[in-house]
Amino acid sequence: MKQTRTAKTETTRRAFISNGGLLLAGTVLASSTAAETKANSGAFAAPAPAPQQDLAALRADLATANHILYDQGVVDGYGHVSVRHPANPNHFLISRWLAPDMVTDADILEVDFDCKPVSGEKARLYSEVFIHGEIYRARPDVKSIVHTHAPAVILMGISGETLMPMYQMTGYMGTGVPLFDIRKAVGMTNMLISDVVRAKALVQTLADKPAVLMRGHGGVVTGSSLAQAVGRSVYMRVNAELQVQVLGKKMTYLAPEEAQLASNNDYPKDWEMWKRKVADRRA
Amino acid sequence: MKQTRTAKTETTRRAFISNGGLLLAGTVLASSTAAETKANSGAFAAPAPAPQQDLAALRADLATANHILYDQGVVDGYGHVSVRHPANPNHFLISRWLAPDMVTDADILEVDFDCKPVSGEKARLYSEVFIHGEIYRARPDVKSIVHTHAPAVILMGISGETLMPMYQMTGYMGTGVPLFDIRKAVGMTNMLISDVVRAKALVQTLADKPAVLMRGHGGVVTGSSLAQAVGRSVYMRVNAELQVQVLGKKMTYLAPEEAQLASNNDYPKDWEMWKRKVADRRA
Amino acid sequence: MKQTRTAKTETTRRAFISNGGLLLAGTVLASSTAAETKANSGAFAAPAPAPQQDLAALRADLATANHILYDQGVVDGYGHVSVRHPANPNHFLISRWLAPDMVTDADILEVDFDCKPVSGEKARLYSEVFIHGEIYRARPDVKSIVHTHAPAVILMGISGETLMPMYQMTGYMGTGVPLFDIRKAVGMTNMLISDVVRAKALVQTLADKPAVLMRGHGGVVTGSSLAQAVGRSVYMRVNAELQVQVLGKKMTYLAPEEAQLASNNDYPKDWEMWKRKVADRRA
Amino acid sequence: MKQTRTAKTETTRRAFISNGGLLLAGTVLASSTAAETKANSGAFAAPAPAPQQDLAALRADLATANHILYDQGVVDGYGHVSVRHPANPNHFLISRWLAPDMVTDADILEVDFDCKPVSGEKARLYSEVFIHGEIYRARPDVKSIVHTHAPAVILMGISGETLMPMYQMTGYMGTGVPLFDIRKAVGMTNMLISDVVRAKALVQTLADKPAVLMRGHGGVVTGSSLAQAVGRSVYMRVNAELQVQVLGKKMTYLAPEEAQLASNNDYPKDWEMWKRKVADRRA
Repeated sequence: MKQTRTAKTETTRRAFISNGGLLLAGTVLASSTAAETKANSGAFAAPAPAPQQDLAALRADLATANHILYDQGVVDGYGHVSVRHPANPNHFLISRWLAPDMVTDADILEVDFDCKPVSGEKARLYSEVFIHGEIYRARPDVKSIVHTHAPAVILMGISGETLMPMYQMTGYMGTGVPLFDIRKAVGMTNMLISDVVRAKALVQTLADKPAVLMRGHGGVVTGSSLAQAVGRSVYMRVNAELQVQVLGKKMTYLAPEEAQLASNNDYPKDWEMWKRKVADRRA
Repeated sequence: MKQTRTAKTETTRRAFISNGGLLLAGTVLASSTAAETKANSGAFAAPAPAPQQDLAALRADLATANHILYDQGVVDGYGHVSVRHPANPNHFLISRWLAPDMVTDADILEVDFDCKPVSGEKARLYSEVFIHGEIYRARPDVKSIVHTHAPAVILMGISGETLMPMYQMTGYMGTGVPLFDIRKAVGMTNMLISDVVRAKALVQTLADKPAVLMRGHGGVVTGSSLAQAVGRSVYMRVNAELQVQVLGKKMTYLAPEEAQLASNNDYPKDWEMWKRKVADRRA
Repeated sequence: MKQTRTAKTETTRRAFISNGGLLLAGTVLASSTAAETKANSGAFAAPAPAPQQDLAALRADLATANHILYDQGVVDGYGHVSVRHPANPNHFLISRWLAPDMVTDADILEVDFDCKPVSGEKARLYSEVFIHGEIYRARPDVKSIVHTHAPAVILMGISGETLMPMYQMTGYMGTGVPLFDIRKAVGMTNMLISDVVRAKALVQTLADKPAVLMRGHGGVVTGSSLAQAVGRSVYMRVNAELQVQVLGKKMTYLAPEEAQLASNNDYPKDWEMWKRKVADRRA
Repeated sequence: MKQTRTAKTETTRRAFISNGGLLLAGTVLASSTAAETKANSGAFAAPAPAPQQDLAALRADLATANHILYDQGVVDGYGHVSVRHPANPNHFLISRWLAPDMVTDADILEVDFDCKPVSGEKARLYSEVFIHGEIYRARPDVKSIVHTHAPAVILMGISGETLMPMYQMTGYMGTGVPLFDIRKAVGMTNMLISDVVRAKALVQTLADKPAVLMRGHGGVVTGSSLAQAVGRSVYMRVNAELQVQVLGKKMTYLAPEEAQLASNNDYPKDWEMWKRKVADRRA
């Protein structure tokens, strides 16, 4: 029997990935109180620089998130996940062009909103990295983004029905997940968000919601922490797998007020479990 | 080829987890005969104290049950399982706040019906521990409880149709599993049974049945032993996965008398197999 | 990369498990030619006794078949598989009461048609062992039997529709698998074939077909070799998983003549692959 | 954490399995430029002979492709994959008669269009090897072929509906995958493409499309590289698993122009990931 690996020394790192529903990654580093954090959450006014060891831990967590998303059926060879830089809110961390399950800490790049690696290095990026840049630019509340390829999510996006919250794990879906149809926005394409124009159109449909489906492609899920974006995308996959079985049938989805009351979830128990699971797989 | 691990020395421990359809965990320790046990089953009149080694074995079995429930798709990061204390029927054993697959023997707490750890320790408990406290309080026949999060069970709970027994493994469902709608009981909530009022409302819908679904949340399964509650919850998952595929279609479910005749099952072969499977996974 | 393990020394043993569509297990030992075998197939007239090492190999293959059936989703903690004794057609080999995945060579018993262990030992048998005894008694052509618990097979059995062959792997189903409803045969029960009366009723519905479904319970698949019974039960599972998704919809099943032309299959490539898979799992 | 294994020394080999959407396996060896390659793609005019080490690497990749197809649910004990010989376009490489997951480099044979091993050896071939011979003969653009047995693909083939592209991963399906009904072509059979007549009939239905379904049997997927044929067959499986859940319902499939724009995909990220996955499984 292996022991739970969460030790006291991981507390700081975990503040990046999970904000307890209150703290924001970017300000935890500045040792703000929860109250201060809430007040500052849109501003990111000059937080203290992140110590190097914390950033290294965040890179490790982002690599782990890549593995979890593969292990949990959210991504296949495609799809990606990013996290906003805790010290510089105009930057974000994302892997170079690699299947998520292949990503290691060393593959994580720091990128600006124009999707240029800040180090100036010439690593190949995901052709759809613009999804991340434009959402971070438009939505200061968003700290992490997952681009999902879960098959059932794709089926929901072409079904003509709205993905609806079935239980408290997907309360964040509120009154339903909006649908982005790239054809209506920019005409005939290869379906990819491979430039800024397409990304801005996607952001417009996302608006102030936590997630958006993409017709004939997948979806995007945001969160106020890495663990939240990952957890939301896993439970979106589960919820969609259920809903595709009952298309055309009347279900009792969460009432809007129930969804709202259940929407504040960082999935902390899941994160530790999923993390151990992918670690065991590679052991 | 690994050998079957069930050895003679495990006989006593197994009496706790599986009562052969006749013995009750709380009285096995007092060395009652099956006949005496049946007569006393509601009373729990002063059984002899459980020897420490037996309690240690039961804690180990409860940790194993946590792993089995994860492995068998009954729980994810959420959901929980408890067992009534064999020597003190007013107490029960349950893990502290942890994803079921992460639970170890050391995480098992002894808790009273008010959901206070009897040792007085300050461990964080599941926010929904009240499910267990109130059911044990109201139902002396219940020796073990599983709170299931199986996705198909959740879908059945919002489908407008009743979960019905399809085969002899789910005969315990009788004429169908009742549905608890928290909104009708206590209004708009985050769907969680996070206090005594909600738990008592759930108990009212459960009534004298072995299980209850919870709309937009999951379900609760009880048993006269740990192995029975676990086995029932696994086969509820299987049964629900089948039934969600045929919503709106006419099936021939077990007749009430067939269900009754098939309801006495402790799933002993499954328990040993599931136990070895999770042990192999951790090896 | 592991090498394929099929070596020359396994040829003899494989004659028991797979008859290449022509040889019958019971007569291979007597070194009959295929033509003789066909002529004798109903008679089993005094074949030479099986050498002990061949019988040991057959016990090992039967244990392997138990593991394969679990691994392939045909059985869970329940269900069983047997093979007719190659030298004594009035006996068959079957595990004692154990979950299939727990069975080892040492658990295999030799049993007569009245379901008594021929050694006189008092091992606990499956309560439904009568399925095997009565089918072997009534059907000399049957050399191996699987009692399946595959969930989709159970759903087909209560759906009001007939399980039909979808592709060449299930050609043996011919014009459809008959359905046994225990209630019509013997009234209200716990659904189990736990005595000779029930078993004889089941045999009547099976008639001269290779398989039969059991309403609210599972099914039985027979074969002219162990590998054939196993292969047929695996592909029955696959076929049923497909068909339950299209209940009420019109599909183009195999025409009766196509099914007939495709029915002669011993699944030899599958057997070697499934065998290695379960061996790797235990390694 | 294991490191990504793609090293510089693998670049040459990878040119065989994946042509980057431009290069063709047969001409890469002749060091043609991409432009020359395009011009020559139908001709295969006297390419330089493949160095032995490259051919050995291609055999290894073909064995790996066999394992990937099993691991990804495209084949079971049946189904097969081949690749056109890079130096001799009138030959192709394919395993001898073995379940795909059992294939090793040493099992790969070089075969001509009449399906004779060119070495003259007497290895048993797949009874359906003619699928490969006749497609390579008729379609110089095809460099690799997968014969799929994915269950959902089989269900689509008997459903009366056309398999349609749901998202950019299956854009190659264009306006839908054609269906071959062997009965209409050659009458009642065992469903197998076990001779040249049946294979030529299949090729006629395939015409200039990248894939074809076979009623009551499976399907065939072609590609301009090994990685493309494998990737297409994996995503055909995913797409079919989704579509069988919505038979009879109106979905928004890719528009023909969208499918066309998305059809140029070699699935390079998937290939590396799938390859590591099967390597880890055997480790």
